[in-house]
Amino acid sequence: MNLAAPADGVKLTDSQRLDWLRLIRSENIGPRTFRAVLNHCGSARAAIAALPDLARRGGAKAPGRICTAAEAEQEMETARRQGSVFVALGEPDYPARLRVIDDAPPLLAVRGKLDVLKSPMAAIVGSRNASAAGAKFAAQMANELGAAGFVTVSGLARGIDAAAHRASLEFGTVAVLAGGQDRIYPPEHNDLLAKILERGAAVSEMPFGWEPRARDFPRRNRLISGMSLGVLVVEAARRSGSLITARMALEQGREVFAVPGSPLDPRCEGTNELLKQGANLVTGVDDILSVIEPIAGRPAELPIEEPEQEAQMFTDGPAADERSRIIGLLGPTPVDIDDLIRLSGARPAIVRTVLLELEIAGKLHRQAGGRVALLG
Amino acid sequence: MNLAAPADGVKLTDSQRLDWLRLIRSENIGPRTFRAVLNHCGSARAAIAALPDLARRGGAKAPGRICTAAEAEQEMETARRQGSVFVALGEPDYPARLRVIDDAPPLLAVRGKLDVLKSPMAAIVGSRNASAAGAKFAAQMANELGAAGFVTVSGLARGIDAAAHRASLEFGTVAVLAGGQDRIYPPEHNDLLAKILERGAAVSEMPFGWEPRARDFPRRNRLISGMSLGVLVVEAARRSGSLITARMALEQGREVFAVPGSPLDPRCEGTNELLKQGANLVTGVDDILSVIEPIAGRPAELPIEEPEQEAQMFTDGPAADERSRIIGLLGPTPVDIDDLIRLSGARPAIVRTVLLELEIAGKLHRQAGGRVALLG
Repeated sequence: MNLAAPADGVKLTDSQRLDWLRLIRSENIGPRTFRAVLNHCGSARAAIAALPDLARRGGAKAPGRICTAAEAEQEMETARRQGSVFVALGEPDYPARLRVIDDAPPLLAVRGKLDVLKSPMAAIVGSRNASAAGAKFAAQMANELGAAGFVTVSGLARGIDAAAHRASLEFGTVAVLAGGQDRIYPPEHNDLLAKILERGAAVSEMPFGWEPRARDFPRRNRLISGMSLGVLVVEAARRSGSLITARMALEQGREVFAVPGSPLDPRCEGTNELLKQGANLVTGVDDILSVIEPIAGRPAELPIEEPEQEAQMFTDGPAADERSRIIGLLGPTPVDIDDLIRLSGARPAIVRTVLLELEIAGKLHRQAGGRVALLG
Repeated sequence: MNLAAPADGVKLTDSQRLDWLRLIRSENIGPRTFRAVLNHCGSARAAIAALPDLARRGGAKAPGRICTAAEAEQEMETARRQGSVFVALGEPDYPARLRVIDDAPPLLAVRGKLDVLKSPMAAIVGSRNASAAGAKFAAQMANELGAAGFVTVSGLARGIDAAAHRASLEFGTVAVLAGGQDRIYPPEHNDLLAKILERGAAVSEMPFGWEPRARDFPRRNRLISGMSLGVLVVEAARRSGSLITARMALEQGREVFAVPGSPLDPRCEGTNELLKQGANLVTGVDDILSVIEPIAGRPAELPIEEPEQEAQMFTDGPAADERSRIIGLLGPTPVDIDDLIRLSGARPAIVRTVLLELEIAGKLHRQAGGRVALLG
């Protein structure tokens, strides 16, 4: 089974989709753990059945809460009434570029026109308290990207985000939400969202009813960059959310673009810093198109993953001494899984199983680039 | 005799200085031809004596006008009364970095404090119709460069130039003029110049009484960049003089710095373009210092020149067939002198002599990087 595409190009059955929803809504299951446990157990249904045992072996005092079938059905029903559908990783409607990021959401709740997710996309992000010039420039870029066949992705925030969405309504634009599909932030953008949905879409990985908290915005930002060929940062103060999106774009191998601005304007500190670090300098849409047009035609590249030859053959659990040897190598400082395998002398499948158990027990954090750390 | 330093570290006698002034003020003698003919003839006095014959052999219908001893004495006297001194290329007071450019002026008329020319320098240039923010930023950089031990060089123009000079008066600042020392442009900057001269200097290669014309400003700009370790362009429209200074800085191997600005402000088009081309992005003085401080301590590098072993041994003029063969290889498209030597099969000294004759006859233009072209 290919980890990167659990249901490559094939639609899930309703029953599979429900299992996927249950699994991703269960405690201690994030996108990376979802992939690992799906790979380990072969299906979401088998994974759900295995969770209590895996958590116990990982040393959980009490197993994490599992989303019930009734709860998942309830969320499905709420979604349908509200006009959202769940698109699974690997299904034809799932955004092609997003599919290949390390922590791609197994399910996206999508409202609006699904087709728009098949277009090549470019993100435009920036300050909430944008200058008039910044907002105008963002609008100009969004509109010209649209005319050139690129869908603008942004975060529905005030300022730059809203300007970019508004200027590209006619081409279809994608808003990525930090909360559930029924928890729009900021609330005054409900009208804008309604216009977006006419030709574009709103996307969320969060459960219905989820009120976005501060930490959900950086998490959401990885989807904005992940769906896009590149991210244009129009105005950004130092330590702003837009810079997080830019950093994620780099980690995901996406292009980063920044608009230059006066050193005397604090709203340009972050963008100028990006330029110093090598971001593409943008004074017109051609500066973006010249970079993303050549790559738009290429298929999204799958990250290189180790083949999982052993996974199918290995059915025994790890022996107690192997488990404790592996756990002994872990600590709060992230380590490479490859190093763990080498240092422990255990078979890769054994190491992966121990890590999965710890993850499901809520004791391990899996980071970008195949690194893991024990949680305090 | 070393071309790059006709009087390396040694002061000229009064009589030599007068000869140098006569030679550089004579028709068809620019800085590059000055070097070539000085090298060919051994001294300025011998060169002056040889000019009519060289011009005749170069095919001049009438030889170019030679500045008389009386005229040169008159200019010397005017300079002295006005408080200017003539500093010759290679003398201790001549700016160290300027000395090594391809077309360094043989003589500089300097007013003010000569000592300031020995400090490491950085140029600040930009729009005449600067924005308030641009002028403020230029002032800030000039002041902070001064505090860090760097003398600010600029062109005494309105806008950015004036802001940079004003903010660095206390450290000594250098104004490079496009006209003669007695023809200040713009005239309303006479007061500013008076303040500059208290601790800094004004420099000109042009004759006394020379009213600056449009084409003298780009010519002057090579001195601004040539004296400096690097050039900061603060605001510059497309096709502005500041971009010429930046181009010259690149040709001279100097660092180019640019301040980012809004793509919607035409005053930032040129600077943003420089950044796209790889100029160092500046949002604070550290962005400049981190680049120029490490190179400030190094001696100015002399451009690599071919050794002139033959020059002393060769006394015969070129034969008529050699001369016509070399001239036949020339045209309005610039060619490398090295290619001419190779293609003509003539000795390097012969080729150089023919070129010098053509130059003095006003028929040849010598460009940067050892390239020559016939004038229409």
